[in-house]
Amino acid sequence: MKVGIINITGYAGSELARILYRHPEVKITSVTGRSAAGQQLNEVFPHLTAMDLTIEPELSGSLDLVFSALPHKASAEACIPVLEQGVKVVDISADFRLKQADEYEQWYGAAHPDPTYLEEAVYGLTELHREDVKAARLVANPGCYPTSAILGLAPAVAEGIITQDIIVDSKSGVSGGGRSLTLTNHFSEVNENVFAYALEGHRHLPEITQELTPLAGKPLNLTFLTHLVPMTRGILSSCYATLANPAEWTGDEGKKKIMDLYRDYYSSDPFVHVTPAPPQTKQTLGNNLCLVHPVIEERTGRLIVISCLDNLVKGAAGQAVQNMNVMCGFPEETSLEALAVYP
Amino acid sequence: MKVGIINITGYAGSELARILYRHPEVKITSVTGRSAAGQQLNEVFPHLTAMDLTIEPELSGSLDLVFSALPHKASAEACIPVLEQGVKVVDISADFRLKQADEYEQWYGAAHPDPTYLEEAVYGLTELHREDVKAARLVANPGCYPTSAILGLAPAVAEGIITQDIIVDSKSGVSGGGRSLTLTNHFSEVNENVFAYALEGHRHLPEITQELTPLAGKPLNLTFLTHLVPMTRGILSSCYATLANPAEWTGDEGKKKIMDLYRDYYSSDPFVHVTPAPPQTKQTLGNNLCLVHPVIEERTGRLIVISCLDNLVKGAAGQAVQNMNVMCGFPEETSLEALAVYP
Amino acid sequence: MKVGIINITGYAGSELARILYRHPEVKITSVTGRSAAGQQLNEVFPHLTAMDLTIEPELSGSLDLVFSALPHKASAEACIPVLEQGVKVVDISADFRLKQADEYEQWYGAAHPDPTYLEEAVYGLTELHREDVKAARLVANPGCYPTSAILGLAPAVAEGIITQDIIVDSKSGVSGGGRSLTLTNHFSEVNENVFAYALEGHRHLPEITQELTPLAGKPLNLTFLTHLVPMTRGILSSCYATLANPAEWTGDEGKKKIMDLYRDYYSSDPFVHVTPAPPQTKQTLGNNLCLVHPVIEERTGRLIVISCLDNLVKGAAGQAVQNMNVMCGFPEETSLEALAVYP
Amino acid sequence: MKVGIINITGYAGSELARILYRHPEVKITSVTGRSAAGQQLNEVFPHLTAMDLTIEPELSGSLDLVFSALPHKASAEACIPVLEQGVKVVDISADFRLKQADEYEQWYGAAHPDPTYLEEAVYGLTELHREDVKAARLVANPGCYPTSAILGLAPAVAEGIITQDIIVDSKSGVSGGGRSLTLTNHFSEVNENVFAYALEGHRHLPEITQELTPLAGKPLNLTFLTHLVPMTRGILSSCYATLANPAEWTGDEGKKKIMDLYRDYYSSDPFVHVTPAPPQTKQTLGNNLCLVHPVIEERTGRLIVISCLDNLVKGAAGQAVQNMNVMCGFPEETSLEALAVYP
Repeated sequence: MKVGIINITGYAGSELARILYRHPEVKITSVTGRSAAGQQLNEVFPHLTAMDLTIEPELSGSLDLVFSALPHKASAEACIPVLEQGVKVVDISADFRLKQADEYEQWYGAAHPDPTYLEEAVYGLTELHREDVKAARLVANPGCYPTSAILGLAPAVAEGIITQDIIVDSKSGVSGGGRSLTLTNHFSEVNENVFAYALEGHRHLPEITQELTPLAGKPLNLTFLTHLVPMTRGILSSCYATLANPAEWTGDEGKKKIMDLYRDYYSSDPFVHVTPAPPQTKQTLGNNLCLVHPVIEERTGRLIVISCLDNLVKGAAGQAVQNMNVMCGFPEETSLEALAVYP
Repeated sequence: MKVGIINITGYAGSELARILYRHPEVKITSVTGRSAAGQQLNEVFPHLTAMDLTIEPELSGSLDLVFSALPHKASAEACIPVLEQGVKVVDISADFRLKQADEYEQWYGAAHPDPTYLEEAVYGLTELHREDVKAARLVANPGCYPTSAILGLAPAVAEGIITQDIIVDSKSGVSGGGRSLTLTNHFSEVNENVFAYALEGHRHLPEITQELTPLAGKPLNLTFLTHLVPMTRGILSSCYATLANPAEWTGDEGKKKIMDLYRDYYSSDPFVHVTPAPPQTKQTLGNNLCLVHPVIEERTGRLIVISCLDNLVKGAAGQAVQNMNVMCGFPEETSLEALAVYP
Repeated sequence: MKVGIINITGYAGSELARILYRHPEVKITSVTGRSAAGQQLNEVFPHLTAMDLTIEPELSGSLDLVFSALPHKASAEACIPVLEQGVKVVDISADFRLKQADEYEQWYGAAHPDPTYLEEAVYGLTELHREDVKAARLVANPGCYPTSAILGLAPAVAEGIITQDIIVDSKSGVSGGGRSLTLTNHFSEVNENVFAYALEGHRHLPEITQELTPLAGKPLNLTFLTHLVPMTRGILSSCYATLANPAEWTGDEGKKKIMDLYRDYYSSDPFVHVTPAPPQTKQTLGNNLCLVHPVIEERTGRLIVISCLDNLVKGAAGQAVQNMNVMCGFPEETSLEALAVYP
Repeated sequence: MKVGIINITGYAGSELARILYRHPEVKITSVTGRSAAGQQLNEVFPHLTAMDLTIEPELSGSLDLVFSALPHKASAEACIPVLEQGVKVVDISADFRLKQADEYEQWYGAAHPDPTYLEEAVYGLTELHREDVKAARLVANPGCYPTSAILGLAPAVAEGIITQDIIVDSKSGVSGGGRSLTLTNHFSEVNENVFAYALEGHRHLPEITQELTPLAGKPLNLTFLTHLVPMTRGILSSCYATLANPAEWTGDEGKKKIMDLYRDYYSSDPFVHVTPAPPQTKQTLGNNLCLVHPVIEERTGRLIVISCLDNLVKGAAGQAVQNMNVMCGFPEETSLEALAVYP
């Protein structure tokens, strides 16, 4: 199968190349990059030296599927012509994630380039929408934060065991901010530093509520706060929720019940592991896993769920390949089997 | 004034030495260390090369005030004889922080060495107990996490603007775990990694509730979860609470009111700064500040407070010196005026 | 093929597991660990959750090849009985690297457990000894530092273009020191810190001279100094040598000649890349490459070579698998094709 | 004394502010910054919240001494008018360091703005030029790398115990590259990475040779190679030289002699410590020390010297204040007494 990558020169794009490199069914035949057009891929990314590709200004040749790793707005503008040629698209940007065009405009500060595709696009959190992804020609790959938050909360929300009060406190490595240059990814500013940002509301919030609200069947009162920590890869979300009936979750039995509930929920999902101990982002470095660990805090009547993943793999390029596998009928784990790089 | 430091060979102890080195009223005349007795201080800590002291097995000479930086239990056992000689003590360990001996036993896994001192000891969160500290001969220096959490929440709790539902999500650097060797402070295990720990309950929880509950005048339902992030110094606590009357905190006026409330509360406290923007731990590196930033989340009716500090300074040795200054009638800021080391 | 790993619970051992996991010809059937015997592998290493193995006190079952990742001395003691059962061995420890038993004793502070194997053992720097490795039943896997230093210098030494004066200044991440606990791998001691260590002579020096001296055909006057830098993985060696005939290496032609010389030397070696720009350790994270970059410093008449690799892959477990592939007739790159994890 | 800082908004400038803040003889009365003119200093640098200053487009008011922390070329252009008003200047840029205008042009790619000042300017490596600094009205503050290299080598060079063959391998933290944005200070590119850069020659080389050659009284054949390591502050230089008479430096006596030679050389210098053990950059974090450790490598007949410092303090702002103290007749250590922040 011939695959193209639009904007391979960012972190999500180069991670796609790394993962697809050993996919037995895929040949990357065309890659684009904005500023680097004309250069060899392995000049820009020496770690991709094994790949012999020239970065082009535009996609070329016939393609079966295209990934876009452009920033929002530019991505929709680039994807739509591809779609219209009958080529499948997995868009890693935010452009087709929200179903409501006005919500898009509110959070992204610009009118959506073409809202007609919003309904068709499948929100590619594979675990929640596998059947829709199978049939999709346009998949909106979820954001890194939402992937961790939604997978951490979905079982509890879907089973109705918590109230509407939810707090998600997320900690992210720096690569989530991309490869462009800002003071908040300057090494000297980030190293030996932790801080909260986007206190006025992070763009990933509407994705989280869009996905969890239908599962809950009721409005949620959800706080989502993001923090930057001095590491390159990884997101860890600590989710706090109020148990609807705390009396049902007491003692060792409560502990067992919550583990069973989560394990049942993800029993068919190869990339979500419900872990017996609190997970660490390092356990996901370079792999496509989301590790989830639910705990009952009996003293307060709360459920705490820790959820973590590699923001560039399960939070971006890995999930995109997972979606491609499902869309194209390949085994879901193809080329995503690697273990974490540890330590 | 002659001062002794028990167990100078840990991080809190050596940080005390760093801070006291330029205190105009203090001469460190005796320091002890368990394994390093007999060595020169600057052999063990080359960064203290300017200090000419021999590490002794026991304190020697007459002393006016003693800091103990021993681990819990050992610290009480070492402090009590000092107190009984009429020497003032600032104990950096947890041994005299909790008022209830049974609570101590529950959290620290051993009977308290001498509960008779628990009532007398003053919990040395200077901002809350300055008058008691002035008169104290035994000050229990607060834990690093509780200092950030209590200072972040005290104004809102004391003013009764929030309900009993509180969540404190804290992120700490590695030095909070001390200088002894464990897998969780092995560089290769911690670097490029974030994880939650002590999900079953952290020992600093009872300090937080002990201090906040009387301020609230009602029981609190407080969740406190700790995380390790890959940096040496710094704690950042993200505190989430439910506003009792959200309608009173809307719009720009709500934003202004919450800032005013916090600024008024700390108007006489030189080491708590209510910041106009979300603070960063790096802004406290090496100084004695606690930076606090309250935000109204109108959409959810919640108050969010970000609070941060250097765990070895305001969270340990700096606050201990602050307490000493208050106990001994020196200006509270003496030898604590330094700006943060940034970047 | 059935493979065993002795002491899987260190970093080299767990890295072997990660790499072999996707080797199509290998099944890991027995793994041992000293303190963790009886535990499930994925309890000790959650990132190996996909592997279903119990850590045993001793190897069990029939095996075709065994890797030992024990510390020196213990490793020889464990490997010899395995060898005597006719099983092939790749020893990652230093025990069979040096040909002279007295040199071993001098550097490792103990008599060699059984010097009779020293002659037979093949020093498994695959690029230099591929033919011997093919026929070997005992391969001594090189040290991490020597791999970078020897591969960086071998072409220049073998071609006789430099004098005997060589300086190797190496910088290593912390994982090279293993998983056991010391102050020099305590996060708070290593983070934001760089220092030289083993100024009195590092144990890896005799390996480097043992390999380079025969290539040079003359004694070398080689200084080798090691430094610790605050990262987990990676070694970068900066090698400085005096050109025998500087006049032969001037201008653009000199630059081209040195690149050609190096590229020719490694033209059949899939895991040594002679790079057009100075390489970075991050370009080797998780892969089995050694990146080498030679530069003529015309002003001083010196050759500078930068050489880097991932100390746990090409510097340990990856090279061990490379050697196994050669010993067993598999394609040399099998299960080692992965690209670096970047960033 | 009234002091101004030109371009306070970089790392050297803000570090000057931190250090001068507690200088008893100095009042900072005017600060400038290019892009931030009009802002409050503590908006731009919240860690300087204690300082109440507005960033101006140009210096204002009468001043006794001015520091310039501008980049090269811009700095000379800004300093010369100040000098012509009779105000003393300490220039942290490279503009007045080199005595030869053509050398400046060769390394900095532009004609010097006004070479007439090159002769008058004193190279402010205080330890080597204290008497000239006393009388100077224009001090060229040395580069961070040269400070570590020259202080590490000066005693051996001046005493004539080494030949002309010298190699300096330097490792630097990221803050040395300043606060402007480039891929080489993007956190995700630098973290978990080490690399050599400027292999074609670093701009700091001519400073090193300019200072060491007269001490040697003969031409030197000096290689200087720079590396970036993933930390914020700190430079460590490993210097390798050939002993002129190795036979004079054997055994314990040789070790003692080299220590004595170095200690004698720096016996009057409060900020150079000749350390008994290899120093670590962390031991200089935030202080003005250069730590130097010479070792005889008897096996090879070489001298190895490890030298380290905080690039923003002894390598920039601290040394600038040290020079100011000497120029103005204040005790040399004033406001520079602080111990390192460790860990």
